[in-house]
Amino acid sequence: MKKYGFGVDIGGTTCKLGLFETTGTLLEKWEITTDTKDNGKNILSDIAKSLDEKMKEQIIPKEDIEGIGIGLPGPVRRDGVVPVCVNLGWKNVNVAREMEELMGGIKVKAANDANVAALGEMWQGGGRGCKSLVMVTLGTGVGCGIIIDGEIVPGSNGAGGEIGHITVNHHETVPCNCGRKGCLEQYASATGIVRIAREHLAKGHESSLLDEIGEISAKAVFDVYKDGDETAAAIVEEFAYVLGNALSNLACVLDPEVFVIGGGVSKAGKPLLDAVEKHYRKAAFSSCDSIRFALASLGNDAGMYGCVRLILE
Amino acid sequence: MKKYGFGVDIGGTTCKLGLFETTGTLLEKWEITTDTKDNGKNILSDIAKSLDEKMKEQIIPKEDIEGIGIGLPGPVRRDGVVPVCVNLGWKNVNVAREMEELMGGIKVKAANDANVAALGEMWQGGGRGCKSLVMVTLGTGVGCGIIIDGEIVPGSNGAGGEIGHITVNHHETVPCNCGRKGCLEQYASATGIVRIAREHLAKGHESSLLDEIGEISAKAVFDVYKDGDETAAAIVEEFAYVLGNALSNLACVLDPEVFVIGGGVSKAGKPLLDAVEKHYRKAAFSSCDSIRFALASLGNDAGMYGCVRLILE
Repeated sequence: MKKYGFGVDIGGTTCKLGLFETTGTLLEKWEITTDTKDNGKNILSDIAKSLDEKMKEQIIPKEDIEGIGIGLPGPVRRDGVVPVCVNLGWKNVNVAREMEELMGGIKVKAANDANVAALGEMWQGGGRGCKSLVMVTLGTGVGCGIIIDGEIVPGSNGAGGEIGHITVNHHETVPCNCGRKGCLEQYASATGIVRIAREHLAKGHESSLLDEIGEISAKAVFDVYKDGDETAAAIVEEFAYVLGNALSNLACVLDPEVFVIGGGVSKAGKPLLDAVEKHYRKAAFSSCDSIRFALASLGNDAGMYGCVRLILE
Repeated sequence: MKKYGFGVDIGGTTCKLGLFETTGTLLEKWEITTDTKDNGKNILSDIAKSLDEKMKEQIIPKEDIEGIGIGLPGPVRRDGVVPVCVNLGWKNVNVAREMEELMGGIKVKAANDANVAALGEMWQGGGRGCKSLVMVTLGTGVGCGIIIDGEIVPGSNGAGGEIGHITVNHHETVPCNCGRKGCLEQYASATGIVRIAREHLAKGHESSLLDEIGEISAKAVFDVYKDGDETAAAIVEEFAYVLGNALSNLACVLDPEVFVIGGGVSKAGKPLLDAVEKHYRKAAFSSCDSIRFALASLGNDAGMYGCVRLILE
């Protein structure tokens, strides 16, 4: 194993780059802007230039680089081809091969960003020590990365871990962004929590949430929940019931060692984890009683960590 | 690769044994009784004796045997140990090692029976040509084996693929065998179909099912369904709705290439498959539209095939 590796987490606005020791230590991280113009044709060369500069600056010869891992917001086929990535403007881009050419033959691997984040949390985060893990990312939507026996489960159409679109309520009348109705992310995302909160407030329930000026946010719900607000408790209970039950169903399919909860909403911390785990324990199939719950611990760096882990296989 | 392999599917009553060419041809199959007395201590030696006899009879030297694959009705750990198998009376049996010793060092691998059946259907059955597959077995209960990238997903507690215990109805009042309420197998198994049928008949709906003397069976429901019976159509619709929707949720998790439907109920054939697939297509997340449905084609031999596939890895 060579001494260094690069993790590159490409987002629609910025690319996060990290220089790691292959033992798992993040030495330095920085960002560059994602240039999506002309169907994102400059993205990879911009990254290559930035990595080259870093190697010169740190006086690291190519021979000391184990490889470059790349995460991106779309499906990546096993052969390293991205069939389509709306956020980057890409169509049929062979990320791994193009980047290898740009970097003079350094090994490159690419995968979906939700999946590399899960791999990162397995390697150095909340799922450390585990080989099978489901990472659930509670943000604007509900993302998920599945790792079985140390390997990402990307799915045959790149839809592995699209648990945000599991139908949890067949009686829902409001459509999800995907066009269907009753998807998990209509309840268990930041957006979903705000929606549940609005419904509770519309019923005239009293809450210090009403004191918040302007927007209601998932963060505000958890903040006043921690202060003992009863309406917030009912909102959190509804959110946690839906998510805990969905994860109990997921356990009957994958039976992972641990559920790692991440994303912006998870900043609410242990009270959130406890609420979800309570409903999971109530609903879980007996064989899956021992599955653990953990908070993600790498934050926005999880993807970069996972990218590096990807090249160590 | 050596020329021959043995597949051994151990059940609570009989063990199915098969002599295969490692190219995938079943040359000969036979059965022996499973001797469960004294905590099943004779099971493996009985099998070893029977395999030895077959090798002598067919004049096959040990050197021509690639290995022996074993399927059994319980969880098998990665190290080949069966922590507990109620149907065989086993506790902490290292199947692989004990069998290797009994067979003079021939390579042995063991796995759960539902999982080897899925592997068998992937290798030579309804999922031929695929590397990722979910096999759903509709029998007394709902069994399932998951294969991702050619590998079984056993789960960290042996509960991988326990989809029969996914909760599909939070309003169910009748308990499942597992003690929880609203499990998939309360609707989508042979038992579940009979239960749905009884509910429909109790409402006084007319049906030629009423002409059946004695017991109503899932087979009878599908027989009269094919003859255009309206009540049977309503029963099948209810069954297919529940299963099709459950599989659409499973697709958002695993995104396999194909769902293979097997087990006794699947003998109803294409009309059953069509009914389930119709509800799947209605409910499926768009990225999972292309997932195929297929009938299992190896029947009770699927386990033996999968056992042989297991040793080819």
